[in-house]
Amino acid sequence: MPFDPSSLRYNDAGLVPVIAQDCETHEVLMLAWMNTEAVRRTLETGKVTYWSRSRQDYWVKGETSGHTQTLVDLRIDCDRDCLLAIVNQKGPACHTNRRVCFYTSIEDGEETEIVSVEADSD
Amino acid sequence: MPFDPSSLRYNDAGLVPVIAQDCETHEVLMLAWMNTEAVRRTLETGKVTYWSRSRQDYWVKGETSGHTQTLVDLRIDCDRDCLLAIVNQKGPACHTNRRVCFYTSIEDGEETEIVSVEADSD
Repeated sequence: MPFDPSSLRYNDAGLVPVIAQDCETHEVLMLAWMNTEAVRRTLETGKVTYWSRSRQDYWVKGETSGHTQTLVDLRIDCDRDCLLAIVNQKGPACHTNRRVCFYTSIEDGEETEIVSVEADSD
Repeated sequence: MPFDPSSLRYNDAGLVPVIAQDCETHEVLMLAWMNTEAVRRTLETGKVTYWSRSRQDYWVKGETSGHTQTLVDLRIDCDRDCLLAIVNQKGPACHTNRRVCFYTSIEDGEETEIVSVEADSD
Protein backbone atom coordinates (compact mmCIF):
# COMPACT_ATOMS: atom_id res chain seq x y z
CA MET A 1 0.00 0.00 0.00
CA PRO A 2 1.47 3.39 -0.94
CA PHE A 3 2.14 5.54 2.13
CA ASP A 4 0.29 8.84 2.32
CA PRO A 5 1.56 11.17 5.10
CA SER A 6 -1.94 12.64 5.45
CA SER A 7 -3.29 9.20 6.40
CA LEU A 8 -1.73 9.41 9.87
CA ARG A 9 -3.85 10.42 12.84
CA TYR A 10 -2.57 13.83 13.86
CA ASN A 11 -3.59 15.53 17.11
CA ASP A 12 -5.59 18.76 17.34
CA ALA A 13 -2.42 20.72 16.60
CA GLY A 14 -1.83 18.64 13.45
CA LEU A 15 1.12 16.77 14.97
CA VAL A 16 2.23 13.21 15.70
CA PRO A 17 4.88 12.26 18.26
CA VAL A 18 8.03 10.76 16.75
CA ILE A 19 10.43 8.59 18.72
CA ALA A 20 14.02 8.66 17.44
CA GLN A 21 16.03 5.49 18.07
CA ASP A 22 19.71 5.00 17.24
CA CYS A 23 20.14 2.40 14.49
CA GLU A 24 23.33 1.00 16.00
CA THR A 25 23.08 1.29 19.78
CA HIS A 26 19.25 1.01 19.86
CA GLU A 27 19.18 3.80 22.43
CA VAL A 28 15.99 5.87 22.51
CA LEU A 29 17.43 9.28 21.71
CA MET A 30 14.53 11.73 21.96
CA LEU A 31 10.89 12.41 21.23
CA ALA A 32 9.78 15.25 18.99
CA TRP A 33 6.83 16.08 16.72
CA MET A 34 6.05 16.15 13.00
CA ASN A 35 3.20 17.53 10.93
CA THR A 36 2.25 16.13 7.52
CA GLU A 37 4.79 18.21 5.66
CA ALA A 38 7.61 17.29 8.09
CA VAL A 39 6.84 13.61 7.50
CA ARG A 40 6.94 14.21 3.76
CA ARG A 41 10.22 16.16 3.91
CA THR A 42 11.84 13.54 6.16
CA LEU A 43 11.01 10.77 3.70
CA GLU A 44 12.00 12.83 0.66
CA THR A 45 15.32 14.14 1.97
CA GLY A 46 16.37 11.45 4.45
CA LYS A 47 17.13 14.29 6.88
CA VAL A 48 14.91 13.91 9.91
CA THR A 49 12.76 17.04 10.01
CA TYR A 50 10.54 17.87 12.96
CA TRP A 51 8.04 20.63 13.66
CA SER A 52 9.31 22.81 16.48
CA ARG A 53 6.39 23.62 18.74
CA SER A 54 8.34 26.40 20.47
CA ARG A 55 9.51 28.09 17.26
CA GLN A 56 6.44 27.07 15.21
CA ASP A 57 8.68 26.21 12.30
CA TYR A 58 10.31 23.23 10.57
CA TRP A 59 13.40 21.94 12.33
CA VAL A 60 15.90 19.94 10.31
CA LYS A 61 17.60 18.14 13.17
CA GLY A 62 21.27 19.12 13.40
CA GLU A 63 21.05 21.93 10.83
CA THR A 64 22.47 24.37 13.39
CA SER A 65 24.35 22.04 15.76
CA GLY A 66 25.72 19.65 13.16
CA HIS A 67 24.23 16.79 15.19
CA THR A 68 22.21 15.44 12.29
CA GLN A 69 19.83 12.52 12.13
CA THR A 70 19.82 10.56 8.90
CA LEU A 71 16.74 8.43 8.40
CA VAL A 72 17.31 4.68 8.22
CA ASP A 73 13.71 3.54 8.60
CA LEU A 74 10.39 5.16 9.45
CA ARG A 75 7.76 3.02 11.16
CA ILE A 76 4.07 3.59 11.93
CA ASP A 77 2.34 2.25 15.02
CA CYS A 78 -0.88 0.23 15.10
CA ASP A 79 -3.05 3.29 15.77
CA ARG A 80 -1.28 5.37 13.12
CA ASP A 81 -0.83 8.16 15.67
CA CYS A 82 2.87 7.73 16.47
CA LEU A 83 6.05 7.21 14.45
CA LEU A 84 9.33 5.49 15.21
CA ALA A 85 12.29 6.91 13.32
CA ILE A 86 15.33 4.64 13.21
CA VAL A 87 18.19 7.04 12.66
CA ASN A 88 21.89 7.39 12.20
CA GLN A 89 22.70 10.00 14.85
CA LYS A 90 25.80 12.12 14.45
CA GLY A 91 27.02 13.42 17.82
CA PRO A 92 24.74 13.95 20.81
CA ALA A 93 20.99 14.03 20.13
CA CYS A 94 20.14 16.22 23.12
CA HIS A 95 20.53 20.01 23.15
CA THR A 96 22.29 19.60 26.51
CA ASN A 97 25.11 17.87 24.59
CA ARG A 98 24.23 14.48 26.00
CA ARG A 99 23.92 11.44 23.79
CA VAL A 100 20.23 11.04 24.68
CA CYS A 101 17.51 13.26 26.16
CA PHE A 102 16.50 10.63 28.72
CA TYR A 103 19.46 11.15 31.02
CA THR A 104 17.56 11.35 34.30
CA SER A 105 16.55 8.12 36.01
CA ILE A 106 14.16 7.84 38.94
CA GLU A 107 15.82 5.54 41.46
CA ASP A 108 14.25 4.94 44.88
CA GLY A 109 12.25 8.12 44.51
CA GLU A 110 15.28 10.24 43.66
CA GLU A 111 16.24 11.81 40.33
CA THR A 112 19.67 10.58 39.28
CA GLU A 113 21.66 11.71 36.25
CA ILE A 114 22.87 8.64 34.36
CA VAL A 115 24.30 10.15 31.15
CA SER A 116 27.12 12.70 31.13
CA VAL A 117 27.57 15.74 28.94
CA GLU A 118 29.85 14.87 26.03
CA ALA A 119 33.07 16.71 25.32
CA ASP A 120 33.04 18.67 22.06
CA SER A 121 34.53 16.54 19.33
CA ASP A 122 34.53 19.08 16.52
CA MET B 1 16.62 15.46 44.26
CA PRO B 2 13.39 13.70 45.27
CA PHE B 3 11.15 13.02 42.28
CA ASP B 4 7.71 14.63 42.37
CA PRO B 5 5.33 13.36 39.64
CA SER B 6 3.61 16.75 39.55
CA SER B 7 6.89 18.38 38.51
CA LEU B 8 6.61 16.99 34.97
CA ARG B 9 5.30 19.19 32.17
CA TYR B 10 1.93 17.72 31.24
CA ASN B 11 0.00 18.78 28.14
CA ASP B 12 -3.35 20.56 28.19
CA ALA B 13 -5.07 17.22 28.87
CA GLY B 14 -2.80 16.62 31.86
CA LEU B 15 -0.81 13.88 30.10
CA VAL B 16 2.78 13.07 29.14
CA PRO B 17 3.76 10.61 26.39
CA VAL B 18 5.55 7.52 27.66
CA ILE B 19 7.77 5.37 25.45
CA ALA B 20 8.01 1.73 26.53
CA GLN B 21 11.28 -0.03 25.65
CA ASP B 22 12.05 -3.69 26.25
CA CYS B 23 14.82 -4.08 28.84
CA GLU B 24 16.35 -7.09 27.08
CA THR B 25 15.84 -6.66 23.33
CA HIS B 26 15.86 -2.82 23.47
CA GLU B 27 12.92 -2.82 21.05
CA VAL B 28 10.66 0.22 21.24
CA LEU B 29 7.39 -1.50 22.12
CA MET B 30 4.76 1.24 22.16
CA LEU B 31 3.86 4.79 23.12
CA ALA B 32 1.07 5.58 25.54
CA TRP B 33 0.17 8.33 28.01
CA MET B 34 0.26 8.93 31.76
CA ASN B 35 -1.20 11.55 34.05
CA THR B 36 0.31 12.44 37.42
CA GLU B 37 -1.50 9.66 39.24
CA ALA B 38 -0.52 7.04 36.62
CA VAL B 39 3.13 8.02 37.07
CA ARG B 40 2.74 7.71 40.84
CA ARG B 41 1.01 4.30 40.59
CA THR B 42 3.61 2.99 38.14
CA LEU B 43 6.45 3.89 40.50
CA GLU B 44 4.63 2.61 43.57
CA THR B 45 3.47 -0.74 42.16
CA GLY B 46 6.10 -1.47 39.49
CA LYS B 47 3.18 -2.29 37.17
CA VAL B 48 3.26 0.10 34.25
CA THR B 49 -0.01 2.03 34.42
CA TYR B 50 -1.15 4.32 31.63
CA TRP B 51 -4.10 6.66 31.22
CA SER B 52 -6.36 5.38 28.46
CA ARG B 53 -7.49 8.35 26.40
CA SER B 54 -10.22 6.29 24.71
CA ARG B 55 -11.64 4.85 27.93
CA GLN B 56 -10.71 7.86 30.09
CA ASP B 57 -9.55 5.55 32.83
CA TYR B 58 -6.38 4.05 34.30
CA TRP B 59 -4.97 1.16 32.32
CA VAL B 60 -2.72 -1.30 34.10
CA LYS B 61 -0.94 -2.73 31.07
CA GLY B 62 -1.68 -6.45 30.70
CA GLU B 63 -4.37 -6.54 33.40
CA THR B 64 -6.83 -8.01 30.89
CA SER B 65 -4.50 -9.59 28.31
CA GLY B 66 -1.89 -10.92 30.71
CA HIS B 67 0.74 -9.14 28.63
CA THR B 68 2.10 -7.19 31.56
CA GLN B 69 4.85 -4.61 31.72
CA THR B 70 6.99 -4.62 34.84
CA LEU B 71 8.91 -1.44 35.39
CA VAL B 72 12.69 -1.74 35.35
CA ASP B 73 13.57 1.95 35.11
CA LEU B 74 11.69 5.19 34.54
CA ARG B 75 13.56 8.04 32.86
CA ILE B 76 12.68 11.71 32.31
CA ASP B 77 13.74 13.70 29.25
CA CYS B 78 15.53 17.05 29.25
CA ASP B 79 12.30 19.03 28.84
CA ARG B 80 10.49 16.99 31.50
CA ASP B 81 7.60 16.47 29.08
CA CYS B 82 8.23 12.85 28.06
CA LEU B 83 9.07 9.61 29.88
CA LEU B 84 10.98 6.51 28.85
CA ALA B 85 9.86 3.36 30.67
CA ILE B 86 12.34 0.49 30.47
CA VAL B 87 10.17 -2.57 31.02
CA ASN B 88 10.10 -6.30 31.28
CA GLN B 89 7.42 -7.13 28.71
CA LYS B 90 5.53 -10.39 29.05
CA GLY B 91 4.15 -11.53 25.69
CA PRO B 92 3.29 -9.17 22.86
CA ALA B 93 3.00 -5.47 23.75
CA CYS B 94 0.61 -4.63 20.91
CA HIS B 95 -3.14 -5.27 21.07
CA THR B 96 -2.81 -6.83 17.59
CA ASN B 97 -0.78 -9.60 19.26
CA ARG B 98 2.47 -8.43 17.75
CA ARG B 99 5.60 -8.02 19.82
CA VAL B 100 5.67 -4.27 19.10
CA CYS B 101 3.19 -1.64 17.88
CA PHE B 102 5.61 -0.32 15.25
CA TYR B 103 5.17 -3.19 12.81
CA THR B 104 4.67 -1.13 9.66
CA SER B 105 7.72 0.19 7.86
CA ILE B 106 7.68 2.72 5.05
CA GLU B 107 9.96 1.36 2.33
CA ASP B 108 10.27 3.12 -1.01
CA GLY B 109 6.97 4.88 -0.40
CA GLU B 110 5.12 1.66 0.40
CA GLU B 111 3.79 0.42 3.73
CA THR B 112 5.31 -2.95 4.56
CA GLU B 113 4.48 -5.15 7.53
CA ILE B 114 7.73 -6.23 9.19
CA VAL B 115 6.49 -7.93 12.39
CA SER B 116 4.16 -10.93 12.40
CA VAL B 117 1.27 -11.69 14.70
CA GLU B 118 2.45 -14.05 17.44
CA ALA B 119 0.88 -17.42 18.08
CA ASP B 120 -0.89 -17.67 21.43
CA SER B 121 1.50 -19.11 23.98
CA ASP B 122 -0.88 -19.46 26.92
